[in-house]
Amino acid sequence: MTQQKTILSGMRPTGRLQLGNLLGALDNWVKLQDQYRCFFSVVDWHALTTGYEDTSQLRENTYEMVLDWLSAGLDPEKNVIFRQSDVKEHAELHLLFSMITPLSWLERVPTYKDQIEQLKEKNLATYGFLGYPLLQSADILVYRADAVPVGEDQAPHVEMTREVARRFNFMYNKAVFPEPETLLNEVKLLPGIDGRKMSKSYGNTIEMSESPDVLRKKVNQMVTDPGRIKKTDPGNPDVCTVFTFHNLFSGAEVATVEAVCRKGEIGCVQCKKQLGERMQGFMEPIYERRQQLANKKDDIRGILEDGAKRAGEVAAETMETVREVMNLNL
Amino acid sequence: MTQQKTILSGMRPTGRLQLGNLLGALDNWVKLQDQYRCFFSVVDWHALTTGYEDTSQLRENTYEMVLDWLSAGLDPEKNVIFRQSDVKEHAELHLLFSMITPLSWLERVPTYKDQIEQLKEKNLATYGFLGYPLLQSADILVYRADAVPVGEDQAPHVEMTREVARRFNFMYNKAVFPEPETLLNEVKLLPGIDGRKMSKSYGNTIEMSESPDVLRKKVNQMVTDPGRIKKTDPGNPDVCTVFTFHNLFSGAEVATVEAVCRKGEIGCVQCKKQLGERMQGFMEPIYERRQQLANKKDDIRGILEDGAKRAGEVAAETMETVREVMNLNL
Repeated sequence: MTQQKTILSGMRPTGRLQLGNLLGALDNWVKLQDQYRCFFSVVDWHALTTGYEDTSQLRENTYEMVLDWLSAGLDPEKNVIFRQSDVKEHAELHLLFSMITPLSWLERVPTYKDQIEQLKEKNLATYGFLGYPLLQSADILVYRADAVPVGEDQAPHVEMTREVARRFNFMYNKAVFPEPETLLNEVKLLPGIDGRKMSKSYGNTIEMSESPDVLRKKVNQMVTDPGRIKKTDPGNPDVCTVFTFHNLFSGAEVATVEAVCRKGEIGCVQCKKQLGERMQGFMEPIYERRQQLANKKDDIRGILEDGAKRAGEVAAETMETVREVMNLNL
Repeated sequence: MTQQKTILSGMRPTGRLQLGNLLGALDNWVKLQDQYRCFFSVVDWHALTTGYEDTSQLRENTYEMVLDWLSAGLDPEKNVIFRQSDVKEHAELHLLFSMITPLSWLERVPTYKDQIEQLKEKNLATYGFLGYPLLQSADILVYRADAVPVGEDQAPHVEMTREVARRFNFMYNKAVFPEPETLLNEVKLLPGIDGRKMSKSYGNTIEMSESPDVLRKKVNQMVTDPGRIKKTDPGNPDVCTVFTFHNLFSGAEVATVEAVCRKGEIGCVQCKKQLGERMQGFMEPIYERRQQLANKKDDIRGILEDGAKRAGEVAAETMETVREVMNLNL
């Protein structure tokens, strides 16, 4: 029997997750939990890199997000589910890595200048924001993870993590850290119900734990081909939000949905009804699990405390070795 | 009875201290220990900012330096003597401060560009080197120190620490941190025995724990007024290394020493003999204490472990408050 490989992944606590988080990352985690020894982290320190000015929702957002994780099927016994800030070794290793990491490695991270530009209204020209990819390196390497499931935008951070691991091992002459592989998630970009980018600020989101009633309503509000006036007009699925969702939820039926739309053989109301049923079939079990778990804050707290303990033990072991090779032990 | 004010100060573990460290800083600490609640820290993480490439001497240097501290008269019961890296809260607070600290504050620290320039042979363009004044801020504020004894070169770091404290208190709407005052040490610049800057690389140093024999030899090797050939020639104390040391060690006698030199009434050999006696009188008790303590590594280890525990308790209390105001508690 070969030992299971280790992975680490994290999400910033932003509160209730959207459907896109489920399809893009969380669904993937649920699959990975059967193949790997998994560490899943609520990376609250990372949330501070952009959200340091208002932390009032941090606690609530953590609970809501972990509820969504469990509702999606993450098993807190099989996996280590924990909050980053509960495991201080992340901060210690980040600090030690900071000593050996050239500034230029951080300055050239592609997301760095992009995000400063995009989030101009927040003042991101901070020391912590510059260093957050290195904090990610510490998050990953403190568990000596073999692989990291990430979206394409985060792949350069894993690449930098490999460089940090290599540099550390070389400098202190011992293979303390593996060079973790990138497990690319196929990120599915979901539009909002109005066809624009899904975003809380547009009020066009679908949450992953939407109730069946609200889900139906939102599907009914979805924007369709604006050129189609009567239901017998031929439709254009390429510009139809409902069709985008059919593509994700209707499996082998998609070809039929497309054909009857293009021929004007189905009205949008009927088409939405079909989509609503499909989506409900997929999302209702999640909704129901969430209903069972909700209001059990103490359970969530217990899960996070247990996770912190288990994560902490692994992290402490790594740090023992790190201190030894750096001559930091007395 | 008013509560004692708290101070924190630290030294990088560079091994045996030189006489200049004693007169410039350590002597001052010995005085302060009777007036303040003192935290004295071996800042080994700071040593990594410039010495990350070779850490082989770190452990030995720590023991040797703490031996010197004790030999100079620091009382490990009255003060908290500890190693920075043993108190992880420094790293945690540093990370949290990094989130709220503008990069520009660090880039404009006067020592930053100077040191990169001066230490070109070491690659100091690292993330950690840029951040080390902020690590100092965490070192100080994690004990909510009221004051910090520093040399003039470090005063801008204390100023930045005040700004960080102010910004944190303002942002999280609670006066968690005091704004620590600067207690300026009068730094006494000691030349080496050859008259150049005292430096290990010149082989011209006097250690603070020099044995009487070696001390005498080194005083005898000191460079005097090169214009003085015969002992009846008038001497020029202004260019004489021996006289520079008389100034520090011979108290009220200095005026006499200067006068007889200028008149050629004393030879350099005799003058050095006088200086040697003075210096020995001052340094022999230190040497003897060191002899008694040396080779008791376990005692030093015990002192540092006890110090880490006591420092850790205070730091943990501060961090509890910090996490509370930042909503990082579950």
